[in-house]
Amino acid sequence: MNIILASTSTLFGEQYLAYLKPEIVQLYNGVDEIIFIPFARPSGISHEDYTQKAATFFAEIGINVKGLHEFDDKITAVENAKGFFTGGGNTFLLVKTLHELGLMEVLKERVTNGKPYLGCSAGSNIGGINMKTTNDMPIVYPSSFDCMGLVPFNINPHYLDTTPEIKHNGETRETRIQEFLTQNEIKVVGLREGNWIRRIGNQITVEGTQLTRIFENGKAAYEIEAGTVIH
Amino acid sequence: MNIILASTSTLFGEQYLAYLKPEIVQLYNGVDEIIFIPFARPSGISHEDYTQKAATFFAEIGINVKGLHEFDDKITAVENAKGFFTGGGNTFLLVKTLHELGLMEVLKERVTNGKPYLGCSAGSNIGGINMKTTNDMPIVYPSSFDCMGLVPFNINPHYLDTTPEIKHNGETRETRIQEFLTQNEIKVVGLREGNWIRRIGNQITVEGTQLTRIFENGKAAYEIEAGTVIH
Repeated sequence: MNIILASTSTLFGEQYLAYLKPEIVQLYNGVDEIIFIPFARPSGISHEDYTQKAATFFAEIGINVKGLHEFDDKITAVENAKGFFTGGGNTFLLVKTLHELGLMEVLKERVTNGKPYLGCSAGSNIGGINMKTTNDMPIVYPSSFDCMGLVPFNINPHYLDTTPEIKHNGETRETRIQEFLTQNEIKVVGLREGNWIRRIGNQITVEGTQLTRIFENGKAAYEIEAGTVIH
Repeated sequence: MNIILASTSTLFGEQYLAYLKPEIVQLYNGVDEIIFIPFARPSGISHEDYTQKAATFFAEIGINVKGLHEFDDKITAVENAKGFFTGGGNTFLLVKTLHELGLMEVLKERVTNGKPYLGCSAGSNIGGINMKTTNDMPIVYPSSFDCMGLVPFNINPHYLDTTPEIKHNGETRETRIQEFLTQNEIKVVGLREGNWIRRIGNQITVEGTQLTRIFENGKAAYEIEAGTVIH
């Protein structure tokens, strides 16, 4: 496999995908066209506008982008694609759409067979075992929470440390993930913004500028550095 | 109906339910025993410990508390109860459990027929039409997102304003609710901590110390004051 699962598409105050540009160039080495999966629709953006946003970035590095919504036969489009990028937005909407259209399995099959895959935020959640560690609001009801399992754990993108100065009693991110562990035996990788998972063949590492927080059943949460291999 | 749907059980730096005590006394006027629904299990607390926490508060106002988990026949227990309190925690776990045990409908029926109901956080979400505006992590997969519809809208508890000083690109609460509105035609009441919905008979008002933010299809979000009637 050849994949990047990133916490976010955009760092605070930066341009779309700018911080990942060198990694993206390496990921899609030799690929001149990819399919963009726009179904997560952040802030309800249209499939067309969202695809255009991705296409503008990829034009800078000589890669053509087609939106998956443009194809009548989306399964064949995925089967024939040279690479994939799934943008962020609402994970429930993304997963519902992929299951409804029968795309989750075929996408998994192509990526498992070596086609490069980039996911950001919701697009990274679907690389995990299931979407049960998304931060998103359940605005639609998917037929299943199961995802591709491109890595043998779940991802919590936009991982956010507790800010004690905010006088608010909603659950912290860490509390939410600990609640997940009471119901599931699945490791969770808390990816802070600026970090990503890189899988090349069978080697999976965490990369980026921040420490990454790991949550496992029966252990205290712990931090790992960029470059650490995770299983 | 005679219900309170509160944003939170506990204000920052205060004791459990302290800020709601006068309202709770009024809600349960003439009731000496209620059933506590502990299934949302915040931080994975046991049903027993969570029920004890509620019982300790209610002992102060002369009301006995039984946990719903204690009953072999939970449907009959709900049918015979004099009043209800559903505690906060994980809304997915709460809704999954209520649907699995066939309790959502019977609870709705009893409350609709006048038994007093107090919900906090997740316990307020289930008073709305569905749970699609919860903030919680989808740690389990419920058979449906449908809830009791004790009020003709959805609730977003712990409503949190955007804090621009946090350099983080996860979606804001307002963005999430706007995404909900792209997929659903249901009003959303953003309940800040310190506020609650009060329904007495057919009159529904918002109460508490903060303004309340209302989100509707095709309108800009707007604020209403405590005491305002909502439909």
